[in-house]
Formats: sequence, structure tokens, C-alpha cells
Amino acid sequence: MSQNPLMPVEEALASLLAMADAQRLPESETLAVDQARQRVLATDLVATLDLPPWPNSAMDGYALNLQHWDGAPLPVAQTVFAGQPGAPLQPGSCARIFTGAPVPEGADCVEMQENVELLEDGRVRFTQALKTGQNIRPQGQENRAGEVLLQAGKRLGPFELAVAAAQGCTELQVVRRPRVALLSTGDELLEPGTPMRPGCIYNSNRTLLRHWLDALGCEVIDAGILPDRPQHTRLRLERLQHGADLILTTGGVSAGDADCLGQVLRDSGRPLFWKLAIKPGKPLTVGYFGQVPVIGLPGNPASALVTFGLLARAYLLRLQGVQEVAPLSVEVPVAFAWPKAGKRREYLRARLENGRAVLYPNQSSGVLLGASWADGLVEIVEGRTLQAGDRAPFIPFSELF
Amino acid sequence: MSQNPLMPVEEALASLLAMADAQRLPESETLAVDQARQRVLATDLVATLDLPPWPNSAMDGYALNLQHWDGAPLPVAQTVFAGQPGAPLQPGSCARIFTGAPVPEGADCVEMQENVELLEDGRVRFTQALKTGQNIRPQGQENRAGEVLLQAGKRLGPFELAVAAAQGCTELQVVRRPRVALLSTGDELLEPGTPMRPGCIYNSNRTLLRHWLDALGCEVIDAGILPDRPQHTRLRLERLQHGADLILTTGGVSAGDADCLGQVLRDSGRPLFWKLAIKPGKPLTVGYFGQVPVIGLPGNPASALVTFGLLARAYLLRLQGVQEVAPLSVEVPVAFAWPKAGKRREYLRARLENGRAVLYPNQSSGVLLGASWADGLVEIVEGRTLQAGDRAPFIPFSELF
Repeated sequence: MSQNPLMPVEEALASLLAMADAQRLPESETLAVDQARQRVLATDLVATLDLPPWPNSAMDGYALNLQHWDGAPLPVAQTVFAGQPGAPLQPGSCARIFTGAPVPEGADCVEMQENVELLEDGRVRFTQALKTGQNIRPQGQENRAGEVLLQAGKRLGPFELAVAAAQGCTELQVVRRPRVALLSTGDELLEPGTPMRPGCIYNSNRTLLRHWLDALGCEVIDAGILPDRPQHTRLRLERLQHGADLILTTGGVSAGDADCLGQVLRDSGRPLFWKLAIKPGKPLTVGYFGQVPVIGLPGNPASALVTFGLLARAYLLRLQGVQEVAPLSVEVPVAFAWPKAGKRREYLRARLENGRAVLYPNQSSGVLLGASWADGLVEIVEGRTLQAGDRAPFIPFSELF
Repeated sequence: MSQNPLMPVEEALASLLAMADAQRLPESETLAVDQARQRVLATDLVATLDLPPWPNSAMDGYALNLQHWDGAPLPVAQTVFAGQPGAPLQPGSCARIFTGAPVPEGADCVEMQENVELLEDGRVRFTQALKTGQNIRPQGQENRAGEVLLQAGKRLGPFELAVAAAQGCTELQVVRRPRVALLSTGDELLEPGTPMRPGCIYNSNRTLLRHWLDALGCEVIDAGILPDRPQHTRLRLERLQHGADLILTTGGVSAGDADCLGQVLRDSGRPLFWKLAIKPGKPLTVGYFGQVPVIGLPGNPASALVTFGLLARAYLLRLQGVQEVAPLSVEVPVAFAWPKAGKRREYLRARLENGRAVLYPNQSSGVLLGASWADGLVEIVEGRTLQAGDRAPFIPFSELF
């Protein structure tokens, strides 16, 4: 009946990141750029090219040499299109040039076409003051060959893959997917598609986590639903520990007699911590079974969602070598009052309306629907109270994928 | 040489959404829940179950009937585990009950186990004040059968798919993927993996957009790279218009002679607008070729990225029936000064450092790397100036996928 002290969220996070650092996946694999989205770069991407590879025009216009120009109209001696090398600029002439085309050797200025006058004899009169270098993108303006463009540990989204393509890359070295054995525990759980039975509910956590793990670059080993019996649980963990980098479970982690995941971890594994100063999600249980890390998420949907998003996600990204695992968080004014200081850090499902965080009416840990309604989580640290209009940290859900 | 007036961003967005509304994809398809991520719901998801389906315990503890209780210790007549129907509560007794287990008929209160005393004769003494309904999650607390849980037009992420699973669903009706023909124009473009040539650059926009389109639920018809010749362009558009819901191009939309996408659209199609009051991205060109919408993105990487993320993305989501297409935007203090009011709306690549927006040093429209460095876009409306510490809207990039 004694209350263990609750572990602060920062401490749990630090502990999970230390586990991941100790375990870091050593293997990497080569993937086509087109296959590498949502994966993590295993080695630095080093530029092989200056970008742009040559000075090029930022405008459609006329290239000239200011240094040797006397201010008179100039004949157009060549036209340079994008994709063509272009001949050196002939003295006393200018070149018609288009956006992206390489600036001819000898030219040091591009004037936009809107600012010139075309004379009847075909010459071009420049009507505005000109500056050396204007409208020219210098070679290597974006990057120089040899620079690190993306560091190992960078998650690869469309922007990063485009950076690789701009260097002419077709393949990238990525960290192999973490293999996550996903196990749902609870005698009350039914697979969707099977008939409802008295006292039961459909398993939604498996669906939640399967898709979320996929978005985080993980391979899911679906280990099904486990009944609440310690012997079953122990045997299943023994089987799973060989193929998995992580065993991720839902349910069975409270203090009750039926909570056998926690029990098996305490009896046959090595629990690191359980009972967190977080709401929802207090029963989160973390430890090892054999050599394999186990993260035991609470079974309540909102608890599973919050603890996965804030803790297990960080572990799984760090396991792949991602250094910056903290999701972006912004301070927003809240549209509600929070008069009672809590002992646990609260994560409230909220929507931004006219820039203010509005709470989903039912913040019960059993309620999943609020997460789909909400834009993200308002964080209220231990001991804090709020009045409407005060600012509190807000984590957009999109940052957790 | 005359300057067309620039179209404001809101007007362009409204125009694109009207195009999508007029065109709305009629077909839908049935997909397994496990295949439906990043797709859009075609019909409302209506609850078939109350959730929870029966009153259940929020705690491990003891269930009793307060109404008929005289305050004396009670014998434990049954144990109710999760997943079991449980027998009706016998008068003058209590039931051992675990989290998630259905509350036995006749019980109206659950006391958590930490607050009871177990007597030597097996009876339970309740030591704290009790309230009717405490620690009981009533049937239908989350939703009632018949309620709309997710509306048609909702994008399906892990949370939404879990909501469907919790109802026992295995399949969902989703809008069919928009078919997007993706065409890169420019004589200077080389495919990654081919040797570099003087005056050329590797095509990165194709990679950027291919992955982004996929994340938005679209099917990509890769139409390759097109040289800057009007005849080629017209022929390619004629071919593409039959299989595509949208032709999405990059490059060839400025005012120059080599910008033949815009030219072909003006000569043989129906241009709706071009030249936007946006920076980067001014040359964005939108129209129809035959019956098919064409969105011509500028070729500069940052211009393509900003106009796709803020305009084409909204069109593609609305085409699938998504109503709320605006990305989440939050006001953040900026770490920089913006002394000169602009005539175009600026979208600056920025990172949040200690809650303040810090700019990527090179905001050139030709520079892609800033987007990978940044967390999102600071929006500065036309005519606005900023001092360091002022607040401006910030759109996290994660909200644009």
C-alpha cells in the first residue's frame, strides 16, 4: 500500500536515451533515395559539388562586364539558356541570359530585362544604375564541395532527400530499421473484426502503435494479444527477446494482481523504473528482459498515446542515432483556467482556436477520441497553475511523427 | 515590360480551393484499416458501439453498492477481471475488481485498493469517504453508438485509425488517391546518377515533390524532365491530361523566352493566374490545360517548396475532401529585425531557439539547404516591419506533410 515516489518525466527520458545510446544499432544499409524517407542517415552526407556548380543568373536579362563598360548601349553577341555552357563574353558586348543559365566568363553583372531598353539596331540600353555582381548567384553560394550537408543521425524527409538529389546522389546510407515486437496484453482485448463479447473491448493500441512505429522508421513484429497470465507473459517475452531490439507492450503495468507484465519484469527481468510523474501515463514501466529493453505502456489509450509520443518515440529515434529527439514546443496562451497545482506533469489534449489552446472536454486517460480532435498537447508542469490567457508549452501532434 | 499586379496569397488560395471543390474526386475505395494511413475518409465513421461498451473500473480496487451500505466492512464475494462479464453484486458484499473490468450489476462505486484495509477474516474495511460513481467509467463516456466519430474529409493518421479499430472496424471507405503527373522542366536539369555537364544542375524538385505527394496521399505519375521547347511542352501536356487529376510542374513559369510552360498555358491552355505577391515563389502559375488543372511551381527549390507547401498542398487535400486545409500556425517572438516593409508576403526559413525564431542566413530562393536546417516558416505579411522580440506567425514544417 506504500506509494513509491514518482519519477519525473525528465529523469525517465534521460534514462531511456541512455538505454538507446548504450544499445545504438550498429548496422546500416544502402537504400535508393526514393526508398529512404522516414529513415535516419547513418553517415554524414558530404557535398561532392559546389552548389550552384557555376555562377548563374537569378533573372531573365542581360549579362555584361561592368568593369570595362563605358555606359553606352551594347550589342547582344550571344544568348545563354539554362543548361548550356555559354561562350566567354566578347569585349564590348552583352549576352542575353535566362534564369538559371550560367553567367558567361567575363561577365560580372546581370540586369533584369524589365530595366533595359531594346534599340532598333538590336543594341541594349541600360537605364538603371548597375552594381558588380548583381543578379548573379555565385558558384558555391549554397554549399561548397566537401561540406557536410546532412549529419549522420538526421531524419530523412522530402527536404533532406531533395538535398541529396541536388548533389546527384541516388543512394544513401541509412541506419537499419529497429525491430520492435509489439505486444498487447489484456484478457479484455478483442481483435477488430471479431464479435464483441461481454466485458471486452476492441484492441485499438495495436493499430495506433503499428502505424506510429512505421512513421518512425521501425519494423513492427506483431506479437498479438496476450492473456493476463504471468506464465504466458514470461514465455512470450522469452521467445520475443531474440528477434527484437525493443519489446513494446501495452497494458498489464498497474499495481493490480492482473497486471502481469510488470510482475514478470520484476520477477524474471530487470525493471528500471515504473510509476512516472506524468498524467496520463503514470504506470509506464521500463526495464530489460534478458538483454532486450522493454517499454511497457499503460493500456488506457490516452496514456499509451502520451507516453509513446513523449518517451518511447524519443528512445526509438535515439536508437537510430537521432540526436535532437525533443519535439518542437511553442508557448501559446491558454483559453482555460488551471487552478489546482498537480503533482504530476499533465499533458492535455487541446486544439488551437484563434491562437489559444482550448481543451478537449474529456481528458480521461481512457478516452482516445480527444487526440483525433486535438492539434496537440498542452504541457503543465508539476505545481503550476494557470489563468486564462497565461502561456503554456504546446506540442503539435505533427511533431511527434 | 509592364508589371502585372501581383495576386495576394489569400486570393490564390481561394482560387485553388474553388478549383478543387469544382473537381472533387467522386470515387472512393474500401481499404483495410492497416492500409489507410495518410488517406482521407470518404464517408463519416459512425460509432456502432458505446465506448466503453459497459461501465468499467478506472482502478484496481473494490466495487460496492453505496446506496445499501451501512459503513461496515464487507466480505469479497467475487473477483472481476478485465474481459469477464462478472456476476451481479450480491447484497451485503463487495467485489474485487481490476482496471478495465466491467463493474458488476448493482455496484455503484469503486474504491482504489490503496484506500482499503484487508481484515484477517477476509473482509474489506473502507477507510475513506466514498462517493457514488467514483472510479467508474460510465458506459458511453467516450461515445455513444450512432455518433459520428470522424467526419468524411478527415485525414487518417495513427489516432484516427485507432479510433476505427476501437469500434471493431477492419475496413474504411477512403477517397481514391489523386493522380498527379509530375513534370520537371528545364534544359539545365540532369537526373541524379548521370554525369554532371557544364551549365547543368541535378533535378532535386522531382525528389522533393515525389515524397511530399506521397505523404499527402497522392499517386505520382512521374513524367520526367522536359526540355524548354514549347512544342515539346504542348505535346507532353496533351498526353498527360488524360490520366491525371493534376499536372504539377516545376520551372518554366517566369517571364523569359525560355519559360515555355507559362507560354504554352497562355497559348493553348487557360491560365487563371500567375505572379503572386509571395516571396519566394512569385512566378507560380495556375490554370487548365484542356480539362486538367495545371499548377506550375517555380523552379527555384525554395520557391517550389514554399508554393507547394502553402498552395498546392491545400489544393491536393481539398481535392480529397479535406475541409480544414490550413496548417497550424502559432505566434512566436522573432530573434531578428525586419526593418523594410515588403510588397510581397515573405516566408522565411527559421528555426526556434529558446522559443525565438532564428533565420537561416541565406534566404535566397535558390537555396534548398535552409529548409532542412529550419523548423518551419515565419510569415511576414505585406507592409509589416518587425523588431527583435515582436511576434510573427510561424508554421512548423511538420504541419505541411
